[in-house]
Amino acid sequence: MANGRLVRIAGAHDALGAKLAQEASFQAVWASSFEVSASRCLPDASVLTMTEYLAAAAAMQKAIDIPVVADVDTGYGNNLNVAHMVREYEAAGITAVCIEDKVYPKVNSFAETAHDLLPLPDFVRKIETAKAAQRGEDFYVIARTEALINKLGVAEALERCYAYAEGGADAVLIHSKRRDQGEIVEFLNGWDGRCPVVIVPTTYPQWAAADAEKHGASVVIYANQGLRATVQALRDTFGTILADGTSLGVEDGIAPISDVFALQKLDDWMALEA
Amino acid sequence: MANGRLVRIAGAHDALGAKLAQEASFQAVWASSFEVSASRCLPDASVLTMTEYLAAAAAMQKAIDIPVVADVDTGYGNNLNVAHMVREYEAAGITAVCIEDKVYPKVNSFAETAHDLLPLPDFVRKIETAKAAQRGEDFYVIARTEALINKLGVAEALERCYAYAEGGADAVLIHSKRRDQGEIVEFLNGWDGRCPVVIVPTTYPQWAAADAEKHGASVVIYANQGLRATVQALRDTFGTILADGTSLGVEDGIAPISDVFALQKLDDWMALEA
Amino acid sequence: MANGRLVRIAGAHDALGAKLAQEASFQAVWASSFEVSASRCLPDASVLTMTEYLAAAAAMQKAIDIPVVADVDTGYGNNLNVAHMVREYEAAGITAVCIEDKVYPKVNSFAETAHDLLPLPDFVRKIETAKAAQRGEDFYVIARTEALINKLGVAEALERCYAYAEGGADAVLIHSKRRDQGEIVEFLNGWDGRCPVVIVPTTYPQWAAADAEKHGASVVIYANQGLRATVQALRDTFGTILADGTSLGVEDGIAPISDVFALQKLDDWMALEA
Amino acid sequence: MANGRLVRIAGAHDALGAKLAQEASFQAVWASSFEVSASRCLPDASVLTMTEYLAAAAAMQKAIDIPVVADVDTGYGNNLNVAHMVREYEAAGITAVCIEDKVYPKVNSFAETAHDLLPLPDFVRKIETAKAAQRGEDFYVIARTEALINKLGVAEALERCYAYAEGGADAVLIHSKRRDQGEIVEFLNGWDGRCPVVIVPTTYPQWAAADAEKHGASVVIYANQGLRATVQALRDTFGTILADGTSLGVEDGIAPISDVFALQKLDDWMALEA
Repeated sequence: MANGRLVRIAGAHDALGAKLAQEASFQAVWASSFEVSASRCLPDASVLTMTEYLAAAAAMQKAIDIPVVADVDTGYGNNLNVAHMVREYEAAGITAVCIEDKVYPKVNSFAETAHDLLPLPDFVRKIETAKAAQRGEDFYVIARTEALINKLGVAEALERCYAYAEGGADAVLIHSKRRDQGEIVEFLNGWDGRCPVVIVPTTYPQWAAADAEKHGASVVIYANQGLRATVQALRDTFGTILADGTSLGVEDGIAPISDVFALQKLDDWMALEA
Repeated sequence: MANGRLVRIAGAHDALGAKLAQEASFQAVWASSFEVSASRCLPDASVLTMTEYLAAAAAMQKAIDIPVVADVDTGYGNNLNVAHMVREYEAAGITAVCIEDKVYPKVNSFAETAHDLLPLPDFVRKIETAKAAQRGEDFYVIARTEALINKLGVAEALERCYAYAEGGADAVLIHSKRRDQGEIVEFLNGWDGRCPVVIVPTTYPQWAAADAEKHGASVVIYANQGLRATVQALRDTFGTILADGTSLGVEDGIAPISDVFALQKLDDWMALEA
Repeated sequence: MANGRLVRIAGAHDALGAKLAQEASFQAVWASSFEVSASRCLPDASVLTMTEYLAAAAAMQKAIDIPVVADVDTGYGNNLNVAHMVREYEAAGITAVCIEDKVYPKVNSFAETAHDLLPLPDFVRKIETAKAAQRGEDFYVIARTEALINKLGVAEALERCYAYAEGGADAVLIHSKRRDQGEIVEFLNGWDGRCPVVIVPTTYPQWAAADAEKHGASVVIYANQGLRATVQALRDTFGTILADGTSLGVEDGIAPISDVFALQKLDDWMALEA
Repeated sequence: MANGRLVRIAGAHDALGAKLAQEASFQAVWASSFEVSASRCLPDASVLTMTEYLAAAAAMQKAIDIPVVADVDTGYGNNLNVAHMVREYEAAGITAVCIEDKVYPKVNSFAETAHDLLPLPDFVRKIETAKAAQRGEDFYVIARTEALINKLGVAEALERCYAYAEGGADAVLIHSKRRDQGEIVEFLNGWDGRCPVVIVPTTYPQWAAADAEKHGASVVIYANQGLRATVQALRDTFGTILADGTSLGVEDGIAPISDVFALQKLDDWMALEA
């Protein structure tokens, strides 16, 4: 996960997006609950089930050679759900999961609503449960605190992340939805480096990865730009086709079918029946 | 399906794409095997199962108010598979399926390979089986001939489509991968209109829908432009983020998070817990 | 559900069990969470997901002509989960769901542990949400109270069931794990009949259905005897085969292959390829 | 798979059956297509998909510590399907698959119908494809010939099995539906032992495992007795409950709920929330 250099991760919701992230040279893929639920036109609010999120993450992992970091929200319930989740994700070949300290069922952090947190000891127990449930060595648990999303301040975020690290978390993720990176910088300044810190600069994109790295971040996740680009591309493409009464006007701006065949490795597959 | 005016259909592989097609004012959505398999980075060659194609089609249908026309390839095997397929798709609320007359397992029509057809009477039996298997009135079976893909000529295509219509097909789909619309025009000129004709102008986009309508086509499917736009958009977006070291440069060209929330109907869902 | 005569329901966990329940003349099938989780060797503790329970219930409903009453535990979370659950179950053709007033994640009622209940108004809101979410007329919501399981007494059980009925529940289920039917009789004596009452005499099998009917019960569920018979039958059969070094000794006591073919309707299917 | 002593395998269709087979001391579990399709009340005729058979096999493997040998019928199509199947089964942790040399879609061997075989070289190619597709060392491919089912004689069966072994098969399975073991004995007498031989004495149960072992069989599969015992047990149990108007009469002959809790490892799970 961290070998000294900043790790950059792209969000995706299916194998195709994951593959394109790898092709672009991202080092891992974030199996985003926001993206996966949006691809179903359902809210990012614990409405889809673990089965569905796992199926999406597993399909991604099968298509790529870099790790999938699966967004598993709250772990889908209590410690039983967390243990089951770890066993299922590990069995599916997923490299890492990221559990957040909100109460089940959760709502997307950018939604204007309350985001209640689990009491600190209860979430530490979830982390311990997750680590105890894994069978192999190469499985990682990232603890994500929503303390800043819940406006509890940097001190609370640090206290929680230290406790999560002590509980066995392999990394911590500090999430913020402020338009500036101020509280993230404050968090990083207060962090003693005992484990890697992950950030998600969705609302503060002006803060470049290089700066984040200087301040001590180990991993940057570009969590949902791919999905949002897809929405725009489909709107433009569908709109143009209907307006023009033909797809001629979009042909030059979209990938040719041969590119899709290459992503599907069609030639390799066809060789099996040659 | 056909009320006198040309019906325009967009291809999709998930609920989000289907929803954006509806939003753009397409009248139906094509649950494309090519798109669905590409979203999994697997070949469009009968490798994914009916279960997986059906899950994709059902997720689309649940998200939209317009019909899903499901691309079911060859029907997944023999008459038993066809009957089972119809029952499963109808039970899932799918409005129409399109079965093609190639031999199982098939390969995507644009692939450079043989595309063997089932003997005509055998495929008629599949159409009859499909129609006999449906339980309600509002389920439609489109018979797709690959005669032109297989270079058997327009006469063979017409003979087959007439037989399929007699076998109960609610519409026929005539597929071509020539760069011009010539053989499609010839087919339409030879068709007596006994049931609607569907075309898929992937390789001949210069032929406008209005022209196709004048020649007697009832339905035009823009089968995979959305997928290809997605590939290009992800490449551009991921590439820019990595090159820039920030997502700032893509922000203006992608949909905001609030648009995604709207597609997820987040406010409606949140009201349930108000 | 109720036409004046006592309705008898058998628990099952797959289509085969459901079919045999219909064959035996039960009037409906209980898609039991206990059975479904046991068939997976996982605890009946909200560890399996809605996706998995729904798949089991849907497979049962497809195989039979009588209704499936799906045990949906707590509804899998909050009101959002309940609304989503109702839409998914209704879309899958399920006739009725039974929601219980325990807190998510729940544990099987027979387990020696606490069984905390949701505050009464919160569960009423779940019932209202469920009824508001259904699209057709022929979908039923049964409200199950665990007040007696939680040792809160018959008065609390009655108060809750009255409130649930006012909230729109089509029937109420009163569960008890006492060895005698005392508290169930007391409940029925206190019930004014405003909607049907369902009972589950797992721990008080000495109380015959005819007696329950006289006291006002409308539905009796034999929730898990089929599963428990299966466990015993497999133990006996497997044990005998290994001990004998041949299956000869079990042949006379097990169904012949032709019976299985009949349950699969093999002849009907084969006729499609004749 | 084979360490010199006869290996005995029991058929199952879900995790519970697999667990009870392990509990009884079988050394492996046969994830039987006949059982899995019967549990869905659908024919054993390639109607269920690989997705569904794999889900069943994976659920079994997760519940037990002994290997699952998955019955994968014909491999679900051509070489592409076989390669995909191997990758998916191996990724799901399945130890072995058994592919048969019938044409897709197949029908259960005991059905009174034709059972056409693939030409010998084509099936050898399937075996080679399967072995080339596996990624690890600990995955095994069993080649099953239906030559005797198709009444082609022992010589043909031997020729095929030798070719399959040369193609890389880790074991061969010779199937017969005669009421006596004659042709199996003849096959074993003609076999030179270059790889283990698996037999399935469904129709000739009088032939004890010890005798089979003496003749050179390495593995005996009791493929469907568990399912057939389940059918009988459910019929008896459901019938008695309805006839008696109570489950009292079946209680002594079925496993208690505490046994089911033990199979679910409820105590272990509950400890996670203690």
